[in-house]
Amino acid sequence: MGKTEVTSAAEKKTPLPVVRRLSIYHDLLVSLKEKKVKNTSSTIIADILEYKPIQVRKDLEMTGLVGKPKIGYDVEELLEAIKQCIGWSYQHKAVLFGVGNLGSALLNYPWMMEYGLVFEAAFDTSAVRSNILIYNIPVHHTSYFNEYIKRHKVDIAVITVPPQFAQDVANMVVSAGIKAIWNFTVARLKVPSNVIVENASFTISLAVLTQKLSERKF
Amino acid sequence: MGKTEVTSAAEKKTPLPVVRRLSIYHDLLVSLKEKKVKNTSSTIIADILEYKPIQVRKDLEMTGLVGKPKIGYDVEELLEAIKQCIGWSYQHKAVLFGVGNLGSALLNYPWMMEYGLVFEAAFDTSAVRSNILIYNIPVHHTSYFNEYIKRHKVDIAVITVPPQFAQDVANMVVSAGIKAIWNFTVARLKVPSNVIVENASFTISLAVLTQKLSERKF
Repeated sequence: MGKTEVTSAAEKKTPLPVVRRLSIYHDLLVSLKEKKVKNTSSTIIADILEYKPIQVRKDLEMTGLVGKPKIGYDVEELLEAIKQCIGWSYQHKAVLFGVGNLGSALLNYPWMMEYGLVFEAAFDTSAVRSNILIYNIPVHHTSYFNEYIKRHKVDIAVITVPPQFAQDVANMVVSAGIKAIWNFTVARLKVPSNVIVENASFTISLAVLTQKLSERKF
Repeated sequence: MGKTEVTSAAEKKTPLPVVRRLSIYHDLLVSLKEKKVKNTSSTIIADILEYKPIQVRKDLEMTGLVGKPKIGYDVEELLEAIKQCIGWSYQHKAVLFGVGNLGSALLNYPWMMEYGLVFEAAFDTSAVRSNILIYNIPVHHTSYFNEYIKRHKVDIAVITVPPQFAQDVANMVVSAGIKAIWNFTVARLKVPSNVIVENASFTISLAVLTQKLSERKF
């Protein structure tokens, strides 16, 4: 894989709408890479996703990578540049709270390779003893978290507990000094202003699907 | 809840980038509604999500709903108008393939209320007998699907099987005449051009989270 040339532009603040679109381009590029496509262009990406070519071109410029005339971008290089721009080239250490169906599914997802997330541990109130492994990730009883955090650096807390317990978990991780929460519950969390909370949603693709279906009905 | 006034605009083709943003506004409005907020405006929405106010205003105009001067939009009315615009006011009948961790989590998600999706049945190769209920949804052996589809209308097939089986499931549902697939696997599916496939992704919010974290590091 070629080394990605990234200018200082990648270290400037990227507006959130651009970040959201970059993550959509990322997923498209992953599928192009799997299909062994070597090169792509802002026009091709715009065409598939129905964005305006000028917008895709401007977004990709935010990565600091420059496309070559007529050839466009190397798919793998562009993928790396986007990952760097949205923070997925750094491996964020994460812990997960709530090892139910969704929690287990997330622990088993190939995060590290593409999304810069490494699950270091999981916590659940039903864990009877410490250090059970699920998908090679140790699962501790939630009461062990305050001990755990003394010896481990954690970037992101992922919350997949039942919604009525989500605020308690949020309070606990905020007290422990964790500054970023990825919330998979329907609970809307109250946290201090220096803590980042993002609510996970996987329904943007559903909106595209149902809207296309609706069009066919009219 | 007031009746939403929606003009014929809602029945025109909505560009996909607008559909994606509308689904993001939808999730924000759900959280405002839960916080008992009555009214909002394109400026407030733009401010929270860091979009340009003019873009939010134009997007919301696509719903056909008109904001009132100084008051803005009624949160519930706007939510309903957006749902109508992206096809979430219609209840799509869905079946799910692969009742593992992720599949079970999806079956247990409150789809109907907000996202216009109703799971009518699920299929799994490990189902030993027909009509087991999981979260009140019947789970059949996958081999029963061809019988099932003769008597049931299905709008959307949701695929959560292991990736190596995803194409087989896709072939089966396409043969059965299903025209929309929501693919949660990492497999990239080959389907005829008249079948809609959307690959689910819940990482857009992760991109926002990791990018905000990255900014703090520089």
